[in-house]
Amino acid sequence: MDEIRIIEVKESIYADNDQKAQELRESLKKQGSFLLNVMSSPGSGKTTVLKSLIPQLQDKYKIAVMEADIDSDVDARTIAEATGVRTIQLHTGGMCHLDAGMTKQGLDEVGGDLYDLYILENVGNLVCPAEFDTGASKNLVILSVPEGDDKPLKYPLMFEKADVVLVNKIDVLPYFDFNLEKFTQYLQKRNPKIQIFPVSALTGEGMDKAAAWLDQAIETWRK
Amino acid sequence: MDEIRIIEVKESIYADNDQKAQELRESLKKQGSFLLNVMSSPGSGKTTVLKSLIPQLQDKYKIAVMEADIDSDVDARTIAEATGVRTIQLHTGGMCHLDAGMTKQGLDEVGGDLYDLYILENVGNLVCPAEFDTGASKNLVILSVPEGDDKPLKYPLMFEKADVVLVNKIDVLPYFDFNLEKFTQYLQKRNPKIQIFPVSALTGEGMDKAAAWLDQAIETWRK
Repeated sequence: MDEIRIIEVKESIYADNDQKAQELRESLKKQGSFLLNVMSSPGSGKTTVLKSLIPQLQDKYKIAVMEADIDSDVDARTIAEATGVRTIQLHTGGMCHLDAGMTKQGLDEVGGDLYDLYILENVGNLVCPAEFDTGASKNLVILSVPEGDDKPLKYPLMFEKADVVLVNKIDVLPYFDFNLEKFTQYLQKRNPKIQIFPVSALTGEGMDKAAAWLDQAIETWRK
Repeated sequence: MDEIRIIEVKESIYADNDQKAQELRESLKKQGSFLLNVMSSPGSGKTTVLKSLIPQLQDKYKIAVMEADIDSDVDARTIAEATGVRTIQLHTGGMCHLDAGMTKQGLDEVGGDLYDLYILENVGNLVCPAEFDTGASKNLVILSVPEGDDKPLKYPLMFEKADVVLVNKIDVLPYFDFNLEKFTQYLQKRNPKIQIFPVSALTGEGMDKAAAWLDQAIETWRK
């Protein structure tokens, strides 16, 4: 396992983030690289989802992971140890999101044209990360059962920006008052085209479908 | 039950937030009012905690609740219906936190000198709300078992700013890999003076101790 690298990223306040994001997306597309932006609340299981997803795809694709965090490098260590893929840690210096410039800094550090699939684990937060386009090919949002089925009502932008939602921790559905049907209704009201996969990253249930979705999305992207 | 009021608050960008917060805190102290700022991730159980806490204190204190949210008024309705106390909804217009100016707007709307205990339910977020002093007498942070015991490492500022932490949803401890001892160690490393109460707001377990802490904090504040 490589040593975990910690990169300090700073927000480029004056840049036009949307344009930067679009440029980044196009340059990644040109070189055949797919960037997946993973967003959720703290503790929804982003890292556990990646630990389950990566082994299903790493024979086919060369994968690198960028772990964004306010502080600490616990997630980067976990991913690197569990999967062996190249992993770097991005520190946001207290900031609650990544923008396209910060993502670009991370990609440059990883090696910008060497990987088929870059996975960006954004800062745990259902608000700010939704406001900044990172240049990702697709946005994956995780909502875990214990958080409650009303979250699309309360954090609408996050669920509007999502291409796919994983409802994680379905292994504990019996212990929580979470109505999957209600959640789906709330979600589809905000975002009619969204895809939803109920999963347990811990037990692996449903993760094959999530991996198949990502595989298909990468194939389509590279056409 | 009163009709739910929705107040649009805007960040006062140019104000010195720390000074405003200090002035607010002093003016509340002068009139014998206590302001509790409640912070957590989305879905940690802020609203359920309030539903359990308020009935234990509302015979002794006159209580008002300010529910902050990006959008929606589901929490304000829940609180008003469950407890009957005066509740208003603050909309942050997409912003991920409240500052002292926004809190003051909320207090003025509620009726700034009429209540013993104002409870502010901040936006669900472990990052931004910690960066802005609201003028609160005390900060209460909720961390729920499903979020994991490593959160003090990853969101250090939030746990440094907290006066008390409720570890919520302990009724589901058997189903999660959450080590309360480890969590306590991580937390005390960041914040040696912090008080910790393991609770289940749903079943009520431990909530009497949390209510007793708040009662004591209010009494001390008003001396």
